[in-house]
Amino acid sequence: MPIATRAFAATAADKPLTPYSFERRDPGPDDVLIDIKYCGICHSDLHMARSETGQAQYPLVPGHEIAGVVAAVGSNVTRFKEGDRVGVGCMVDSCRECSSCQEGLEQYCVPGFTGTYGGKDRKGGTAETITQGGYSDHITVDQHFVLSIPDRLPLDVAAPLLCAGVTTYSPLKTWGVGPGSKVAVIGLGGLGHMAVKLAAAMGAEVTVLSTSDRKKADAERMGAKHFLINSDKAAMKAAAESFDLIINTVSATHEISSQVQLLARDGTMVMLGLTTEGLPVFAVPLLWRRRRIAGSLIGGIAETQEMLNFCAEHGIACDIETIAPDQINEAYERMLKSDVRYRFVIDMEKLAA
Amino acid sequence: MPIATRAFAATAADKPLTPYSFERRDPGPDDVLIDIKYCGICHSDLHMARSETGQAQYPLVPGHEIAGVVAAVGSNVTRFKEGDRVGVGCMVDSCRECSSCQEGLEQYCVPGFTGTYGGKDRKGGTAETITQGGYSDHITVDQHFVLSIPDRLPLDVAAPLLCAGVTTYSPLKTWGVGPGSKVAVIGLGGLGHMAVKLAAAMGAEVTVLSTSDRKKADAERMGAKHFLINSDKAAMKAAAESFDLIINTVSATHEISSQVQLLARDGTMVMLGLTTEGLPVFAVPLLWRRRRIAGSLIGGIAETQEMLNFCAEHGIACDIETIAPDQINEAYERMLKSDVRYRFVIDMEKLAA
Repeated sequence: MPIATRAFAATAADKPLTPYSFERRDPGPDDVLIDIKYCGICHSDLHMARSETGQAQYPLVPGHEIAGVVAAVGSNVTRFKEGDRVGVGCMVDSCRECSSCQEGLEQYCVPGFTGTYGGKDRKGGTAETITQGGYSDHITVDQHFVLSIPDRLPLDVAAPLLCAGVTTYSPLKTWGVGPGSKVAVIGLGGLGHMAVKLAAAMGAEVTVLSTSDRKKADAERMGAKHFLINSDKAAMKAAAESFDLIINTVSATHEISSQVQLLARDGTMVMLGLTTEGLPVFAVPLLWRRRRIAGSLIGGIAETQEMLNFCAEHGIACDIETIAPDQINEAYERMLKSDVRYRFVIDMEKLAA
Repeated sequence: MPIATRAFAATAADKPLTPYSFERRDPGPDDVLIDIKYCGICHSDLHMARSETGQAQYPLVPGHEIAGVVAAVGSNVTRFKEGDRVGVGCMVDSCRECSSCQEGLEQYCVPGFTGTYGGKDRKGGTAETITQGGYSDHITVDQHFVLSIPDRLPLDVAAPLLCAGVTTYSPLKTWGVGPGSKVAVIGLGGLGHMAVKLAAAMGAEVTVLSTSDRKKADAERMGAKHFLINSDKAAMKAAAESFDLIINTVSATHEISSQVQLLARDGTMVMLGLTTEGLPVFAVPLLWRRRRIAGSLIGGIAETQEMLNFCAEHGIACDIETIAPDQINEAYERMLKSDVRYRFVIDMEKLAA
């Protein structure tokens, strides 16, 4: 029988999130029912809750950085058992058949993956059923999209790895970062601080680019060797043509041409932020050093597991600030002011009974 | 003693090119003196002659698609002898010491390569000596920057290969085009028609994107399998996510977002045109399929030779319209209207005595 679920939901683009009750599907043969312990707050939760892309259907339960414990499993589930520590990221399903899915790149599923919230559910509902996310106490997810969280990783600091961790890990791997790589990270926020830690653990020499030196000590503690302030023209000039990879985590529209100049020959700037307006890109700096600008979207399921194992092995986790569910709206406001070091995580056990 | 040289030169940004006489340096030990037979007209000749980037020093002799015959060689020159059929492209020198030069990528020379015209000469003059290009009857060039033109390639149709040929060959090689690759070429002009021929010869399935079907028959003759008109929304939609590589030869500022959507996952759009304004690039289509936008600049010297050999082997050359030197100004005007199929080549033997 369906699982009674308590949650926090957005009910309209201009309303705060409020308590909300609904039902999850009873686990089918391939499903895992998870007691959610923690859920990270990603910037895109806010975009979606406020329907800034004009697509939200309400009520909407955000949340795709989910960590919890297995409560029950379906008859076909062999990889998980009750009590296992597990996570769910941005995807709960995909077509499983296209070339991307076959290659383990479910995030690039040709007909489109099913988002953990706000997505059209492929199973367990009508065609109009919309998925609901992790700001809730339970979730039912197909085993293919459930990750195992290694014992060494506490659940609270592991939760944001499911989005912020893999979103930065994936491009570092795709563009071959390792010992000797020179990597710059633009923006030291939820994504940026993970990029610094992961790139440093992979052996790269990491530089943080920021608008001020407020976070310099943090960056160094996380493994950055250098800290560069965008407005410091002399320092920017000295750093010209020096980076193999720039991880650009800024999600607001911003000027990138001076930062493209920091790329070495054949270097790539990878955009991770979902900016909606066009960024003016100049051809000449690209031509002049065969530079590239790319995008990268989260990571595949196998890669997400690889990232979690890597984090456990290297003692890497998110820097978090834990909040209760009734502080979500306040957290959104603080996030808009970049006032978070470095990720809010909701303690879902504090949902009022 | 210095070599008396006749040429056509720009004397000011707003004046037509006119006959001009000057002296080339006498060949030093490493130099090759070339009798120029043909010189192609590249769009950047016009940009430079009219100082559209604000850098030209006058008088300026344009031309970097040079084909001719060796007239004399210096004492250290072993690769060439009098009578050899040779070419010179966009570069006549570089530092020879930086990592790019050491890797045979002289076009990305860190302190900067010496352009065939309008460049600060590294040898044979004062520090202020500016190089002069191929709209002339002689040129003295260091042997490292002289290419051998295979016997099978007539000099007139080979001349534009030295810029248009290698500029398109290099990205096709860099991005691994071969049998099975799906390549689109935007713009069927001097660069574009070479991109079509080269990609087809490499075994790729080639599509031409254009604003009208005026050149459809030409594109097919050159090896394109498909022809796509930008404004045909249904055809553009049907072609979505299908290309591994898009060679964008357009040198005017233009909208690229609808064309980025044509890239498959991990596909790259390579910009070859020297647009000066920023092109608005949207992050979401890049993220959604891990697409890339890149730039590429001509090619290295070894790669240029490889391209010439490839063209000889596959019977590839430029489609040209031969003109006399006194038709250069008229050719510039026609080029601005895209009224050329597909490259103007100046017959330098028609320089008035």
